[in-house]
Amino acid sequence: MDDLFEFGKQALAAQPFSALVGAELLSFAPGQAELKLAITERLKQQHGFVHGGVMAYLADNVLTFAGGSVLGPAVVMSEFKINYVRPGLGDALIARSEVIHSGRTQAVCRCEIFVLKEGQESLCAAAQGTINKMNPEA
Amino acid sequence: MDDLFEFGKQALAAQPFSALVGAELLSFAPGQAELKLAITERLKQQHGFVHGGVMAYLADNVLTFAGGSVLGPAVVMSEFKINYVRPGLGDALIARSEVIHSGRTQAVCRCEIFVLKEGQESLCAAAQGTINKMNPEA
Amino acid sequence: MDDLFEFGKQALAAQPFSALVGAELLSFAPGQAELKLAITERLKQQHGFVHGGVMAYLADNVLTFAGGSVLGPAVVMSEFKINYVRPGLGDALIARSEVIHSGRTQAVCRCEIFVLKEGQESLCAAAQGTINKMNPEA
Amino acid sequence: MDDLFEFGKQALAAQPFSALVGAELLSFAPGQAELKLAITERLKQQHGFVHGGVMAYLADNVLTFAGGSVLGPAVVMSEFKINYVRPGLGDALIARSEVIHSGRTQAVCRCEIFVLKEGQESLCAAAQGTINKMNPEA
Repeated sequence: MDDLFEFGKQALAAQPFSALVGAELLSFAPGQAELKLAITERLKQQHGFVHGGVMAYLADNVLTFAGGSVLGPAVVMSEFKINYVRPGLGDALIARSEVIHSGRTQAVCRCEIFVLKEGQESLCAAAQGTINKMNPEA
Repeated sequence: MDDLFEFGKQALAAQPFSALVGAELLSFAPGQAELKLAITERLKQQHGFVHGGVMAYLADNVLTFAGGSVLGPAVVMSEFKINYVRPGLGDALIARSEVIHSGRTQAVCRCEIFVLKEGQESLCAAAQGTINKMNPEA
Repeated sequence: MDDLFEFGKQALAAQPFSALVGAELLSFAPGQAELKLAITERLKQQHGFVHGGVMAYLADNVLTFAGGSVLGPAVVMSEFKINYVRPGLGDALIARSEVIHSGRTQAVCRCEIFVLKEGQESLCAAAQGTINKMNPEA
Repeated sequence: MDDLFEFGKQALAAQPFSALVGAELLSFAPGQAELKLAITERLKQQHGFVHGGVMAYLADNVLTFAGGSVLGPAVVMSEFKINYVRPGLGDALIARSEVIHSGRTQAVCRCEIFVLKEGQESLCAAAQGTINKMNPEA
């Protein structure tokens, strides 16, 4: 478990885009992952909320981590869908994912994204998607 | 039309996150929008491809622009789904969206994202989603 | 609660298509719904499994019931996505939904569909979607 | 081409559920498929429209046909998302799909569903999804 968490932190640190936005891995265990992102000015859109694309990035990444936790490190996001339910207004975003089914080459995962404001979490988006093992023959 | 394009460029410029990633509005007209993003190191993941979250950001933004072109500037992305079909390896990403249906308060839009490499475009993702008029009473 | 369940049973009985496929409402309460469908020959595809379209119908319907449980009876499905994870092989399908967020005019819901075989449930599909209040002005 | 169309008609005829709802294959060629469904009372919901589950069935099936046209007959729907944009009120539904990307084991397809009323077609739903080759080892 600790090895997986260490591995996950290194994988996240190896993603220049995740470093750019400031994502942090809070937990990583078989079947689940948790990312955190401090809300800063440069992650916003023109109305002062977190840009939807930032939540979509978080969904993409936390779902892929969940899939990788059961399929191994060489995975790719195949597809996902996201519903936005509340503007991202607060101090940080927290994204939590879980595997709902996994086979030999594919995992279906879900995540919720919460905005943290004055110590309270509120759901701001929910996503569901498919992660595939990378396949050089595909 | 030119006014809409000018308005769109200002809206994009007013998004700190779009400035951070370097998105550029190529065209903006009733029912469609086109964004471009130069592929730089900091937009990548650990395997050297553009991070999927960057493509998801592009989809979110170009779909929202398309929706805004028919619903007016005060819109929010309600939901979308994206399929990734090819790694983002090349010089730039180009995202093109179109409205496939619009009502009084909602538009359904699609987009394709292409990677541009040595002058050739290849499809790397496709998305479909719903844009809603912002509603202070909702 | 019992009134809501009675109302739900009448609403389902008023859907000719639900009668055609044989759907049954198992439970219906604020924020959740549960449908059951006996697997019969005529619900199958050419490989002997339940047709994916039957699961998609179940997802559509159980999500709409969940949305209606919080938004009132006059609702329409706006959109949903479904992932199939296991063939529908067994005695019956059971679909369970829950509201994950609701506002004044819109609810976001999730469901899981299980196949029941020899008394054991196995996940065969999962869906997420948006239900809207019907709006004659829209 | 004609062989593919003949093969497609036999595949559809071998689906008991497609016979139950009355689906008809209008065309089937590499990369595309077209299904038609006469709107009858038993395909409706309680408000007199075609049940959303019927449109979801059509999307599932026409997308799978499109995928099968390039991947071969042994395919399964992996996932799809559908947006409903107009009630199904009219004489028939027509669903048209196309492959937007295909690899060795997977195809991403889109479809539109139109309602035909007094000779006029109107878009009532649009979907996008993934079709996979069946894999006995998976």
